[in-house]
Amino acid sequence: MTQTTTLTIHALTELIESIFRTAGLNAPAAASLAHVIAAGERDACKSHGIYRIEGCLRTVKAGKVAPDAAPVLADDGSAVIRVDAKGGFSNPAFDLGAPVLAARARKLGVAALVINDCVHFAALWPEIETLTGMGVAALAMCPSYATVAPAGGSKPLLGTNPLAFGWPRPGKSPYVFDFATSVAARGEIELHRRAGKALPEQWAIDAQGKPTTDPEQALAGAMLPFGGHKGSAISTMIELLAGAMIGDLTSAGALDLLGTTTLAPQHGELILAFSPERFAAGRPGNVFDRAEVLFDAILEQGARLPSQRRFTARAKAEAEGIALTAAEMAQLERLRSLGLDAVN
Amino acid sequence: MTQTTTLTIHALTELIESIFRTAGLNAPAAASLAHVIAAGERDACKSHGIYRIEGCLRTVKAGKVAPDAAPVLADDGSAVIRVDAKGGFSNPAFDLGAPVLAARARKLGVAALVINDCVHFAALWPEIETLTGMGVAALAMCPSYATVAPAGGSKPLLGTNPLAFGWPRPGKSPYVFDFATSVAARGEIELHRRAGKALPEQWAIDAQGKPTTDPEQALAGAMLPFGGHKGSAISTMIELLAGAMIGDLTSAGALDLLGTTTLAPQHGELILAFSPERFAAGRPGNVFDRAEVLFDAILEQGARLPSQRRFTARAKAEAEGIALTAAEMAQLERLRSLGLDAVN
Repeated sequence: MTQTTTLTIHALTELIESIFRTAGLNAPAAASLAHVIAAGERDACKSHGIYRIEGCLRTVKAGKVAPDAAPVLADDGSAVIRVDAKGGFSNPAFDLGAPVLAARARKLGVAALVINDCVHFAALWPEIETLTGMGVAALAMCPSYATVAPAGGSKPLLGTNPLAFGWPRPGKSPYVFDFATSVAARGEIELHRRAGKALPEQWAIDAQGKPTTDPEQALAGAMLPFGGHKGSAISTMIELLAGAMIGDLTSAGALDLLGTTTLAPQHGELILAFSPERFAAGRPGNVFDRAEVLFDAILEQGARLPSQRRFTARAKAEAEGIALTAAEMAQLERLRSLGLDAVN
Repeated sequence: MTQTTTLTIHALTELIESIFRTAGLNAPAAASLAHVIAAGERDACKSHGIYRIEGCLRTVKAGKVAPDAAPVLADDGSAVIRVDAKGGFSNPAFDLGAPVLAARARKLGVAALVINDCVHFAALWPEIETLTGMGVAALAMCPSYATVAPAGGSKPLLGTNPLAFGWPRPGKSPYVFDFATSVAARGEIELHRRAGKALPEQWAIDAQGKPTTDPEQALAGAMLPFGGHKGSAISTMIELLAGAMIGDLTSAGALDLLGTTTLAPQHGELILAFSPERFAAGRPGNVFDRAEVLFDAILEQGARLPSQRRFTARAKAEAEGIALTAAEMAQLERLRSLGLDAVN
């Protein structure tokens, strides 16, 4: 039996925070990053858990993120709130803007948060859940780096461009989805490569633009968008709204700037927030009750709501804590004591 | 050789307008509907062309739309503009709200147009192009009626829920996409049935929730969302934002109210508008130039931009007019002379 150490969510968050402080992050950045990484472990999303810490530290060590950046919020009273991340991680920039965004959505009905010049490594669902926790619906999107060919194309141009949405459910876990607009995440192709397994059809093309099921050829070629030309169109929309429109890099620009897909990319992010009460004002019935009728109908026919697996894992972690292996604990201790010297 | 009659876009629009006037639509409604239907013919989108007129007239005759409704705009100065269509067609309601929406987006950065209590039969791209013509980017969505099962489900619950987006390109046709969030349109399944052809895999399930390639069984069962659980999540988001949130019917509610999928359904619609200049303000470079770099990169690798086929057909129609068959002309004349007596 493997030896494990069980930590409370709070204790794990503090441990991760101390690693980031040792690595030179300022207090707000360390707290923001620790929150989202501990949330990944808590929700059994290992791909966004402690595994991400080293990538963040490598990005710091390579000088590709400002670890002590202080994000700056600009608010002209309109429906667009801006946060300049000043080359730091996106997470503290989001935390600075989120309460202002939610308040503006409550005032005007809909509002947008633009984050510029941020380095991005995290899933979007923690941000979505922060906003649903403030009582607003939210839609978030960002570019990444160019690894996906547009439908009908032959070369990497689009990112895996995540799209995430949340709807608040008073007294319940929110309705939340968060997915890459590529058919698969790049990490899944890497896992197939390591396991020597062929990829499913229609995941990727090779460097000549031909369909391939060979993970090596796929990594040298391009991934494909989910859902054919429809997913490709949505991914292009994300490049336009959360790249070109907000005056920030597209996925192609982010890859050009960084020159590698092994560090966290710099680009922007766009988050829209909607006040259900404001949109429903003057209409009969209760806006949240109407949504519950829909959720009940989905569940009644045996379908799932997205994120249900995460919420189940969360309930378990909140009750029992988070179990880490001896190897994971040793690695966390190593990162805490060595800081940036622990990574290449 | 089939005899055809060639009409200018203007002449076809006037002919369709006179049909709707004969059928009892008021002048703004007749003009709005004629515009979008003529635009369908102009762009060689026959599925949204004159073929749609009879469905509109049947919906009028069945008393399921108010042909002389006067839509009412409510504007409290916030980022949400509302138009109550008063049970009339969505098109004149949109035309009333669109200039206010675009102006509000220019003022606040982002704004939303809510249309309530409208009867909907048209594609969304004409609305998107109206807004891109006003210099704003736009995202539109609406429910339809319950014919699509959620991913993992077994019964119709979601609609074919179109999602449409547009980006203005100064001096060029806009970037526009508009698609159903089902894997196929219901009409395509009907075409397979008439042709006695099997459906592609993963288009539909039968009444027991099992995958089927039989069009009859599919029509008795449910269609599937595009892109598996990702498309299903987007379609659910459309039910939430453009149904529950705006205080209007979901696709299930619209089908319950109407009791048939052969008439145009009543529900609401949500359109978001974004001012690229406002979002890009203070950032280096030109917002539209940045988007063109992306479009160039898509085209350079041999991929297409969505709607390019429509724009090519449009250029031809503008130069040469629209050719209708003798049967089509006879039917239009019949509809114009008989009005509602021409339909069941």
